[in-house]
Amino acid sequence: MKHLTFLIFLTFLLISCKKETQTKDFLPSWNDGTVKSSIVNFVKSVTDPDNTEFIKKEDRIVTFDNDGTLWVEQPLPTQMFFAFDRIKELSKNKPKWKKQQPFKAILEGDTATIASFHTKEALQIVLNANAIDDVEKFDVVVNDWLKTAQHPTFNKPYTDLVYQPMLELLNYLQVNDFKIYIVSGGSLEFMRAWASELYGIPSEQIIGTTLKTQETIIEGKPVVQRLSELEHNDDHEGKVISIEKIIGKKPVMVVGNSDGDLEMMQYAFSGKGSRFIMYLNHTDEDREFLYDKDTKYGVLKKGIIEAEKNNWTVIDMKNDWKIVYPFQKTNTK
Amino acid sequence: MKHLTFLIFLTFLLISCKKETQTKDFLPSWNDGTVKSSIVNFVKSVTDPDNTEFIKKEDRIVTFDNDGTLWVEQPLPTQMFFAFDRIKELSKNKPKWKKQQPFKAILEGDTATIASFHTKEALQIVLNANAIDDVEKFDVVVNDWLKTAQHPTFNKPYTDLVYQPMLELLNYLQVNDFKIYIVSGGSLEFMRAWASELYGIPSEQIIGTTLKTQETIIEGKPVVQRLSELEHNDDHEGKVISIEKIIGKKPVMVVGNSDGDLEMMQYAFSGKGSRFIMYLNHTDEDREFLYDKDTKYGVLKKGIIEAEKNNWTVIDMKNDWKIVYPFQKTNTK
Repeated sequence: MKHLTFLIFLTFLLISCKKETQTKDFLPSWNDGTVKSSIVNFVKSVTDPDNTEFIKKEDRIVTFDNDGTLWVEQPLPTQMFFAFDRIKELSKNKPKWKKQQPFKAILEGDTATIASFHTKEALQIVLNANAIDDVEKFDVVVNDWLKTAQHPTFNKPYTDLVYQPMLELLNYLQVNDFKIYIVSGGSLEFMRAWASELYGIPSEQIIGTTLKTQETIIEGKPVVQRLSELEHNDDHEGKVISIEKIIGKKPVMVVGNSDGDLEMMQYAFSGKGSRFIMYLNHTDEDREFLYDKDTKYGVLKKGIIEAEKNNWTVIDMKNDWKIVYPFQKTNTK
Repeated sequence: MKHLTFLIFLTFLLISCKKETQTKDFLPSWNDGTVKSSIVNFVKSVTDPDNTEFIKKEDRIVTFDNDGTLWVEQPLPTQMFFAFDRIKELSKNKPKWKKQQPFKAILEGDTATIASFHTKEALQIVLNANAIDDVEKFDVVVNDWLKTAQHPTFNKPYTDLVYQPMLELLNYLQVNDFKIYIVSGGSLEFMRAWASELYGIPSEQIIGTTLKTQETIIEGKPVVQRLSELEHNDDHEGKVISIEKIIGKKPVMVVGNSDGDLEMMQYAFSGKGSRFIMYLNHTDEDREFLYDKDTKYGVLKKGIIEAEKNNWTVIDMKNDWKIVYPFQKTNTK
């Protein structure tokens, strides 16, 4: 009898909790409209066991791009600003960099040359900035930098420039038992230092571009060293390769903002059952940056055509987001 | 008032549930002794928030080897038997294999030559057996094989030859919020086909030796193809490299059975805080196989010396396990 009473009370409690989850607005920074409602409808349908679109918890895999999808990537992705400062720091022990491009331009603050850098130079800078004799030391290096570094036009810490509506979406999905992976063209080691805490995503759910590593024994202790050598470029089809290898399941939802995300979107979209593919379109000149096809980082050209063709969701930042950054939250909210 | 009553009832319920978890024997197939008690003591201490050894849930990462740790690996690891049969199947379209070693020996059933194979030949066989034009087709191939294939001396399906005490340990750890990864020298794609279901470990927590993959578009659909080319050998220091790259945290517990697991054990052991490192020693000639240093697969020589030196736990299969396989369970249990 005692147990029955327990159970009845527990059932009531669970029902009232579930009701709250169903009626609560998890996306308060999103304006009402087709984008917001399509997100909510997708989540509700695939998490409802009575719906034909239902997806089991273990298959609720979602992949998010990072730069330009979860935080600002203009005028350059944050990791590039970090790499520039890191190269300056490391140059103390690398005298030859003074005469060698692309390092020379960074050390001299030669912005015209820096602006002319292409993928090859950018990669060379990142490879050298992120190589380290003990990978365990790297998080501290990145976090020390993040504490003082500021975005060049916003004059705010980079970690302030995450998109509040996306933080709400990450939380909304997690509350509904989706497992979120960040699958970024940015380097894994840079994201790991801060993304877990900022986004609430464990390190083992962060996937990115990787450098070669090796194990060595230093003073009897096993140490992993990261070399200045590219191992895997996690962009375009590289994202598909990583997802297949590391996750082993097709995502049921993908969120990105550039052509670099298109292949993983098409890959996810080719799966059976309900799929939700969404692009963020940077339409907001005032609150963020206005860019799509004519930009160095975050080009969106082919992707937007595919989105229209396949009826994917496209976020219009200007119209779909009430606020862009957490610091714009008002107390009345 | 109503809410208070709820809460009081709920608290009672939770306390009684917790009590059951604390007193229940999760390891009924393990004989009482130092090994069993050291496992239980470790789990209890690191999951108790009042204990100085407490480990937060997100850091409770455990890695298990597979072959010889979770299931039988003698006289050959199961994936080798699969590979032999797969090579026979694929040879229908590969006439040149009839004249080419190591394939020739397999096609002719030349057991003497097969027995003389070393790592190089074994690898070549696996690479060719596991390459496929669409990775999504592979699970079916493996599972079809597992349905009919039998272990050469036990005359039972390979999936019957998992270790019941280890299944109990996996469950015990999961109940206590440990996140278990399988980190195996065996190939990722072979394990993925069955390990999730057999061990209750999701595909994204299985790490293994990988072959190169590429994305291609077939009839407008993105397809991942697996090439007969080694990408990463997940053995010895390769296990450390994978753990650092894919998980990004040092395991707090490692279970293995061979020298191939030693590096990941040393890596985990080098971390701060409580660590539990455990070797399975194959001492049971009657119920399983007796082997350690003089064997082709699963050599345990350096590891056992390190275990003694560092006071790691060593399971003596013969004495520590009441039963070895699930089919030995009796109804009275």
